[in-house]
Amino acid sequence: MTPATRILGVDPGTRIVGYGLLDHRHGARPAYVECGVIRLREEDPMPVRLSVLARTIAELIAEFGPRVLSLEAAFHGVNASSALKLGQARGAVMAVAAERGLEVAEYPPAYVKRAVVGHGRATKQDVMARVQLLFGLARPPTADAADALAIALCHAHAPKLPRRTGP
Amino acid sequence: MTPATRILGVDPGTRIVGYGLLDHRHGARPAYVECGVIRLREEDPMPVRLSVLARTIAELIAEFGPRVLSLEAAFHGVNASSALKLGQARGAVMAVAAERGLEVAEYPPAYVKRAVVGHGRATKQDVMARVQLLFGLARPPTADAADALAIALCHAHAPKLPRRTGP
Repeated sequence: MTPATRILGVDPGTRIVGYGLLDHRHGARPAYVECGVIRLREEDPMPVRLSVLARTIAELIAEFGPRVLSLEAAFHGVNASSALKLGQARGAVMAVAAERGLEVAEYPPAYVKRAVVGHGRATKQDVMARVQLLFGLARPPTADAADALAIALCHAHAPKLPRRTGP
Repeated sequence: MTPATRILGVDPGTRIVGYGLLDHRHGARPAYVECGVIRLREEDPMPVRLSVLARTIAELIAEFGPRVLSLEAAFHGVNASSALKLGQARGAVMAVAAERGLEVAEYPPAYVKRAVVGHGRATKQDVMARVQLLFGLARPPTADAADALAIALCHAHAPKLPRRTGP
């Protein structure tokens, strides 16, 4: 059997950051590991929020040992101010992941939705319901955690993942 | 005599990041400590560049022990794609500085130029020449290092710095 690749999907924001971990093994259904959200305190200045975010991602990497960080490619159509804030959160996450040797992959939002729902125009509820079903979860994850799992799943489905042939 | 506050000014970018360190003591002329640039390899993927940037900033903090990180507040008028990239570099730097307990301060570009040249419409050459003169440097620093020193100087001039009265 080929070894599993553990994937950490992250949906960065400046207040709530979703994360989701799954194990991907070629030819098998991706297996759920963990998901949740990192809540950043609005009363904290941005640099403090970013350091809390970076530290929490570092803790998740230390605890679960993912090999890949999967992110949504930043969407077009946001204004420069939002893009800057989103960029800051992404930069904090990407730096800590790359520093720890993770491969970092990015996928367009439509591709992420297609990976879980089958088309690119899915609603948040579609993604939550589908993620619950796919992983056989007792309850649907919160929207941000479901997005993060969808982003991780997107990497599991990506054809560019290295395929290992069994012995 | 009041203790000096060591200030690290950083001018983040995705290829060249300027940095400058100075010591500020209330009532005295700020004293030059160090300046330079961090060059990020264009052939490296962005997450690797960000991790190199974060690690180098961490090394500068460990070596020089600044108390404050001073940044230029991101300028308006850049497009969303540039703002996202700039944000990523800023996020990597801010997270590592806040994690190490530095105060993070931001100043608008016009304020930074005014702090060194006396008005907000200074050219890069004006900033380089003025930084050389102010700190009595044998040669003008490179444009990015001069900008970083100007950003650090801006914090030294900021009225919101805590004023300590001597014994």
